[in-house]
Amino acid sequence: MTVTTPRGFRASGVAAGLKTSGGADVAIVVNDGPDATVAGVFTGNRVKAAPVMWSQQVLKGGVVRAVVLNSGGANACTGTQGFRDTHATAEHAAAVLRGGPKPLLVGAGDIAVCSTGLIGEMLPMGKLLPGVTAAVKALNTDGGARAAEAIMTTDTVAKNAVVQGDGWSVGGMAKGAGMLAPALATMLVVLTTDAVAGSEALDTALREATRLTFDRIDADGCMSTNDTVLLLASGASDVQPTQEELTAAVTALCHDLAQQLIDDAEGATKHIAIEVLGAASEADAVEVGRTVARNNLVKTALFGNDPNWGRILAAVGTTQAAFAPDRIDVAVNGVWVCRGGSAADDRSKVDLAGKDVTITVHLHEGEMSATIWTTDLSHAYVHENSAYSS
Amino acid sequence: MTVTTPRGFRASGVAAGLKTSGGADVAIVVNDGPDATVAGVFTGNRVKAAPVMWSQQVLKGGVVRAVVLNSGGANACTGTQGFRDTHATAEHAAAVLRGGPKPLLVGAGDIAVCSTGLIGEMLPMGKLLPGVTAAVKALNTDGGARAAEAIMTTDTVAKNAVVQGDGWSVGGMAKGAGMLAPALATMLVVLTTDAVAGSEALDTALREATRLTFDRIDADGCMSTNDTVLLLASGASDVQPTQEELTAAVTALCHDLAQQLIDDAEGATKHIAIEVLGAASEADAVEVGRTVARNNLVKTALFGNDPNWGRILAAVGTTQAAFAPDRIDVAVNGVWVCRGGSAADDRSKVDLAGKDVTITVHLHEGEMSATIWTTDLSHAYVHENSAYSS
Repeated sequence: MTVTTPRGFRASGVAAGLKTSGGADVAIVVNDGPDATVAGVFTGNRVKAAPVMWSQQVLKGGVVRAVVLNSGGANACTGTQGFRDTHATAEHAAAVLRGGPKPLLVGAGDIAVCSTGLIGEMLPMGKLLPGVTAAVKALNTDGGARAAEAIMTTDTVAKNAVVQGDGWSVGGMAKGAGMLAPALATMLVVLTTDAVAGSEALDTALREATRLTFDRIDADGCMSTNDTVLLLASGASDVQPTQEELTAAVTALCHDLAQQLIDDAEGATKHIAIEVLGAASEADAVEVGRTVARNNLVKTALFGNDPNWGRILAAVGTTQAAFAPDRIDVAVNGVWVCRGGSAADDRSKVDLAGKDVTITVHLHEGEMSATIWTTDLSHAYVHENSAYSS
Repeated sequence: MTVTTPRGFRASGVAAGLKTSGGADVAIVVNDGPDATVAGVFTGNRVKAAPVMWSQQVLKGGVVRAVVLNSGGANACTGTQGFRDTHATAEHAAAVLRGGPKPLLVGAGDIAVCSTGLIGEMLPMGKLLPGVTAAVKALNTDGGARAAEAIMTTDTVAKNAVVQGDGWSVGGMAKGAGMLAPALATMLVVLTTDAVAGSEALDTALREATRLTFDRIDADGCMSTNDTVLLLASGASDVQPTQEELTAAVTALCHDLAQQLIDDAEGATKHIAIEVLGAASEADAVEVGRTVARNNLVKTALFGNDPNWGRILAAVGTTQAAFAPDRIDVAVNGVWVCRGGSAADDRSKVDLAGKDVTITVHLHEGEMSATIWTTDLSHAYVHENSAYSS
């Protein structure tokens, strides 16, 4: 159940020596069509890696035939030479794909590129290009799982998912195991579908899906230089779902992958949902949820199994959302430890022994709500991020 | 060299049993005049503790004769009863001061109150009020050091400082040892001066001083519910400094105290200055400095002695400041590891063995600059904040 589950796609993952571990580090996903429509969402960071700048240009053409991905190097903050390296990667991939056993009529402009790894160092092109050649040779209609492995960095498991439609499906893979707040270690996501869908329909579906999923695993303000989400459609099912069906399937798929990212977040011991109810607007609900999710004092308290609602209220107090301090209720795992801005049920009743934690903040200002997912702040987080250069 | 160094002030600190440690936990600072002018700066958090709401009201009168401070309880998120408790504390202090060996003609409305400690619990008034009585009895013209000890929470050292003017001086005490980003564990600061100065002159001096010092130890967006900075003037020196002299002295004093706070931040192993140069505006420089200061990936890298300029650039990229990614230079402890947005001098040349770290970010957009001070993110931070309820 991977990116090669929908018909019309081949994929592969090979070891090219970019990772010191010797693991797979170059992946390719090819869309054999008949269609090659595409949509993409890229990092909001103003410091963009070379592959992001390249792929944004490619997507303007509305056609993507293949995606080349590498771990072991982000190709970010690498100047004009970095951009030339990305361009060379796409040119090389196009040439090999044109000359392969199943020749594809593609140019570099049809090929998106994604990279992840250390920022600020040049990619070892002498290893990468032969890796691309090998990856093209290894392309297979069941190669999705290998591709998902090749994009892992500090991830401990590969992330794959599929959502079935009526005669069509959407498949996807993701990487990104960084602590999801405040920084989402580079998130790369490739989604594939055999539905018949124009680029505009794909774009509508993808934007709605990311808004409700990847954008709510506390990320936006602190995206990495390389974050990329691509959705490719082959049309191989000959089925054209409605916009509503397409959006629902892509959203469900992104939700699944986003929860897998949270579950595998670096050094996390908790999977935390921050549910904001009774907000005057959805924007208020999201702002409150994000602010609580990013508060290091809240995150360390949860690591310590402490249902510290005072820190939650103090975090809410720093937002611009509509609220009155003496009307806020807060529950931790269903126990309303704070009502009307003051202590309520006994905090000792809160059971924080498990991995899953739900914090509910009720603002009593309106009918809008939103949920933000995040993790705790643990010793392991400090260890991984002080020892690993990225 | 404390709050009782300037003439016209008495202070004390006593143990009232609010702290489980049995240490001093109630402090009073009295202004014996002849003047009783005052200025104050309070938390920007919209969830304000009862003593903050009380003291803001008191300051509107323009006169403060005494400040009562307690550790061992924040009296925040305690509803109307919490406010009544603060009011009762001020009433009680006024009554005892009126009846003391050196009677002061004061009412509750002349008395500011500051509290720090756990949020969400009622203060034990049965211990606090006798503590106030004892603190009034202990008032002394050399009691400043005891007062500074009584307001400590997780602080490991008391913070005092004095700046001398020409025939007058400014003294101060501060507490607050929380990791200074993203959350400044409650910061309480009381400053005293024997200068002759109206409330307006004090206000001008204090706002300029806090803007350049306490507001730049990464705090604003994440202030606690109780943060308070008060400046009291007795006029006992009979010297009226110019506004410029007053502002300079108060700023120097606040800078001294702010650096002491950073030095004693919970679990910090580094004292980090983030110097932003070449900004188009001071606001841009402050935004860039704060964003870098708050980035957990930058903070953990520095804990790990890793001069990871890529994470610094990625943090800058999330700001709205004017910059071009390919024109940014970054130095760590004087080594320009990044020039023009790409790798420059060898990062192995950076010496991060000591406690002090200076990160310099040059935006090359203008002539403005600002420095933000912060700390690293260490195992000890996670430990203290997961084990200590606040």
